[in-house]
Amino acid sequence: MSSVSTGDRIRNSAQWARIKRSAGLGLLSAAVVGSITSFAAESAHDLKLPASFRNWYHVNTMVIDKGSPFFEAMGGMHNVYINSAGETALKKGEPYPDKTVLLVDWHEFTISDGSYVEGPRKATAVMLKDKKKYASTGGWGFQGWAGGDPTKPLVTDPTKQCFECHQPKKDQDYVYSSYIP
Amino acid sequence: MSSVSTGDRIRNSAQWARIKRSAGLGLLSAAVVGSITSFAAESAHDLKLPASFRNWYHVNTMVIDKGSPFFEAMGGMHNVYINSAGETALKKGEPYPDKTVLLVDWHEFTISDGSYVEGPRKATAVMLKDKKKYASTGGWGFQGWAGGDPTKPLVTDPTKQCFECHQPKKDQDYVYSSYIP
Repeated sequence: MSSVSTGDRIRNSAQWARIKRSAGLGLLSAAVVGSITSFAAESAHDLKLPASFRNWYHVNTMVIDKGSPFFEAMGGMHNVYINSAGETALKKGEPYPDKTVLLVDWHEFTISDGSYVEGPRKATAVMLKDKKKYASTGGWGFQGWAGGDPTKPLVTDPTKQCFECHQPKKDQDYVYSSYIP
Repeated sequence: MSSVSTGDRIRNSAQWARIKRSAGLGLLSAAVVGSITSFAAESAHDLKLPASFRNWYHVNTMVIDKGSPFFEAMGGMHNVYINSAGETALKKGEPYPDKTVLLVDWHEFTISDGSYVEGPRKATAVMLKDKKKYASTGGWGFQGWAGGDPTKPLVTDPTKQCFECHQPKKDQDYVYSSYIP
């Protein structure tokens, strides 16, 4: 069994630029949280870590493995959930209504005899739809928490840390995930 | 992007024996469904495909990749869910009460630039706890459906196709998955 250990930092602007080109990866790059200390901070979004999200609708899972250019920043298993407010829009491929929450529960993984097995949580990241309140970031508020710990928010500058990565997905209401029946 | 195409058959008894030694893999080997046509059939279990299981508690995800000895039989992304009847027992690591259902939603995957991305459904498999009714198979009934289609049940001999693989996990009430907080 080999343990996969990943760095969580975006170390330079070249890598950051690469991440910004990540259209089609199918992830909430809100999971690229924290560590962007070189940008000027704007106000953090006032989101709360939702309870019971593992009882929400499971949208999909993605594993970012060592071969990915995003491994250093986002390596791990990404379990994506959506709350009931957004479920119909997800299935119909329509813009999401206010109060929709999409959540990435980001875990480590190990590779055991050729199988990728889920490990402990690295972070939890959410995007909450409120067209008025978060108009400057596509109608979405963004936040993430280290280890899924509500006392450890990671996003201080949602535009730089989150929205810039979501902008290329404007035609999907800034959401990377889509419905898998 | 490389599409991962897997065979779904267990072609020989050596491979079947290997699967029976699969303790620790963390999967419901009920997903090894169908195609065991060489065994004498006993009565199939009368289970129904549950509706809305993607709103159940998401237990874990596992990806069985090409390097796994189980790839030919079970390659793919395995999303495991549990219904509300079993959620507390899962979290406490206790034997499961009657009416617990564990479900594997088994999907294809593609590898896109080093990331494992969920694809279409291959099959859905369940185990339902009823200590009396299914006493001869550890208190669990087993069934699976090709493509998640309720008209396409796959298990005709639950002992041979399912329970024999689960027997090594007797100390976990015959369940491979365990709780990942």
